[in-house]
Amino acid sequence: MTSKPIGVAVLGLGNVGSEVVRILTENAADFEARIGAPLEIRGIAVRRIDGDRGVPAELLTDDPAELVGRDDVDIVVEVLGGIDIPRKLVLSALENGKSVITANKALLAEYTGELADAAEKSRADLYFEAAVAGAIPVVRPLMQSLAGDRVNKVAGIVNGTTNFILSAMDETGADYAETLAEAGRLGYAEADPTADVEGYDAASKAAILASIAFHTRVTAGDVYREGISKITADDLETAKSLDCTIKLLAICERITTPKGKERISARVYPALVPLDHPLASVNGAFNAVVVEAEAAGRLMFYGQGAGGAPTASAVLGDLVMAARNKFYGGRGPLESKYAKLKVAPMGDILTRYYVSMQVADKPGVLATVAAEFSKRDVSISTVRQHGAGDGARLVVVTHLAADSALSDTVASLEQLDVVVHVASVLRLEGTTV
Amino acid sequence: MTSKPIGVAVLGLGNVGSEVVRILTENAADFEARIGAPLEIRGIAVRRIDGDRGVPAELLTDDPAELVGRDDVDIVVEVLGGIDIPRKLVLSALENGKSVITANKALLAEYTGELADAAEKSRADLYFEAAVAGAIPVVRPLMQSLAGDRVNKVAGIVNGTTNFILSAMDETGADYAETLAEAGRLGYAEADPTADVEGYDAASKAAILASIAFHTRVTAGDVYREGISKITADDLETAKSLDCTIKLLAICERITTPKGKERISARVYPALVPLDHPLASVNGAFNAVVVEAEAAGRLMFYGQGAGGAPTASAVLGDLVMAARNKFYGGRGPLESKYAKLKVAPMGDILTRYYVSMQVADKPGVLATVAAEFSKRDVSISTVRQHGAGDGARLVVVTHLAADSALSDTVASLEQLDVVVHVASVLRLEGTTV
Repeated sequence: MTSKPIGVAVLGLGNVGSEVVRILTENAADFEARIGAPLEIRGIAVRRIDGDRGVPAELLTDDPAELVGRDDVDIVVEVLGGIDIPRKLVLSALENGKSVITANKALLAEYTGELADAAEKSRADLYFEAAVAGAIPVVRPLMQSLAGDRVNKVAGIVNGTTNFILSAMDETGADYAETLAEAGRLGYAEADPTADVEGYDAASKAAILASIAFHTRVTAGDVYREGISKITADDLETAKSLDCTIKLLAICERITTPKGKERISARVYPALVPLDHPLASVNGAFNAVVVEAEAAGRLMFYGQGAGGAPTASAVLGDLVMAARNKFYGGRGPLESKYAKLKVAPMGDILTRYYVSMQVADKPGVLATVAAEFSKRDVSISTVRQHGAGDGARLVVVTHLAADSALSDTVASLEQLDVVVHVASVLRLEGTTV
Repeated sequence: MTSKPIGVAVLGLGNVGSEVVRILTENAADFEARIGAPLEIRGIAVRRIDGDRGVPAELLTDDPAELVGRDDVDIVVEVLGGIDIPRKLVLSALENGKSVITANKALLAEYTGELADAAEKSRADLYFEAAVAGAIPVVRPLMQSLAGDRVNKVAGIVNGTTNFILSAMDETGADYAETLAEAGRLGYAEADPTADVEGYDAASKAAILASIAFHTRVTAGDVYREGISKITADDLETAKSLDCTIKLLAICERITTPKGKERISARVYPALVPLDHPLASVNGAFNAVVVEAEAAGRLMFYGQGAGGAPTASAVLGDLVMAARNKFYGGRGPLESKYAKLKVAPMGDILTRYYVSMQVADKPGVLATVAAEFSKRDVSISTVRQHGAGDGARLVVVTHLAADSALSDTVASLEQLDVVVHVASVLRLEGTTV
């Protein structure tokens, strides 16, 4: 006795879409056994129907809206990329009670609210495990496994391209431009790498993680963002001398303001991370996410953050769960935004700075520089002086202070006569001092 | 407008039960917001009602069966320990359509089938995230996030007591008995540590993990098991010299027999693990689980594997999901056993051995010993000779071979005249050769 099949529309046949279709086809019997009913692919939407795409030609369509609207489509898998087109398609699916699985972080980081509202109305599922950290289960653990806990912090390496570049710079000593070019040759960086290297991709993921972790609607625009394009070989060299490496981190944190208000912070920037911190050894295209929750303590999730098959694994896990809900009734949790916490501006966040500057080689420089820090109540942790003459350099690492005080200090250092040039400013994360 | 409360019975008020009640009480508003309806504790079953237990006295009862049977109890949280009593209570709850959250690995490793059948009939939920690796989300990721993938291996450190002992032995060089006593003093080992140190606890968890990972009913009796009580300070010393450490591993693996049959293996034993393997650096009472899936690749989950608050976090995540299902309809996945794979006997599993033996200090010993290995087609990876005279020692590390061939070889080595004594035999895991 076979149950009525559940119809699936796949939108997009790139790296991820191809793997989704391949695995669904090859393991069809497993999917049926796990769901209770067979899955049937009703169609695959592509931009242009041409050549052999490695899937049955009769499944291909260049009219995704028609496909999504078909009566025999119960679940839509959106792996298109872009925002405007998928937004319309996903919305139309949800409004018609069709569950949606999407890997589209940019879409979610802008429009989760709108999409979740539509899903809520029609009692459909909206799942997006693949949108953050590829194959690594992070979204479901945060939304479900930790649903009875209070998450205080989520910090992760969630962009494979930048982690590949920073790991390679750390290993080879090469500079940024050269390493980016190499990453492009190896397929780790796109032709236009802006979204990755400037931190936009990580910021979208930070918005999604913060929304889930803190039961608050956070969009990409709420996330403070700096990319890695200004990181130099020198920075990595200095990081090593401080027993650190440099990682692009996405950090979501629950904070209490000096006045005792509860706020959240969502931010992305390259930071010095001590070598003994679990995130320091996450290299290459791997991703990892550390979660700190009140009862659970510190958890870490590690794995492949991108790539066709790993991302397809996350999509298909969601697909099985959505299909089970179609079959058995019920649905997964949607957006939870009851906490309505405010996002604190970056200036209010307590951080530690590492400042490397080229200075005049004469007595009194250290005193002058130190005065600028103390003026703003920024306490210095370590100072190192390197070189002499034109190459004289001062490296200052601070204790925790308000980011605004730190950035004001840096601005004023640049005005000092004794400071020739502030070469590099990075935050230091993963320490507790 | 407040929705009708969902009634919860808590069975047990030990470390975990107390934390469950505390968090439910302190964060009641969060639970209500996340579920859609308030949770109300209808009663807490304890063995004896005496003294101040830190909870409202009117909630206490020493009649768990009566509590479970109450009409206003919708969900039962079982954190009692033991097997027979919780089995009856959980079964009666499930038969009456009440969802159950349990942290009871021993119960599940024997009776998941019976319990899942009862839950299936009455359409109740049976959740047990806390039964494996405490706060670390492993059960839900395996059952749900990886539901569209094919898991090939799950290997983990899932017992905090033994990991604490082995880490301490590695660090201090102390012997087993001394370290066990210290673990007892620090609260990391129970008065009767048998279940932990002899691997029974880890074997229960391996049975649960293998069942989920391979969609096959696996019980504790199917799991090959060795404990850590024979590990010596010498073993840890030798491990170091091989750039390894020793960990008690629970390993669940999909294997193919020489005749091409698909089988699974579930086993628990202390093994040498190379220092650069991710599990080698999991120290103290921490747990970690590595999952290898076909599409997702290698994932790792890390965190606190025991303790009141971490275990309560896992219980409460399950509780929120079960309560949401009560509120919205639908239910989580139950036992999946469609694959019905057979469990291969330990002798058929390919492993690598490390054998340390005291030998006679005379020429030809190595040749005689090596002949015993080659007789059974076991290929040797490295041989080291240490000491001389009465202290002459030979350490052999093999390549992969059938475990039966390896154990037969060891048995025959013990009969050799040139071998005074086989001091230690351990398997080597986490290598691919």
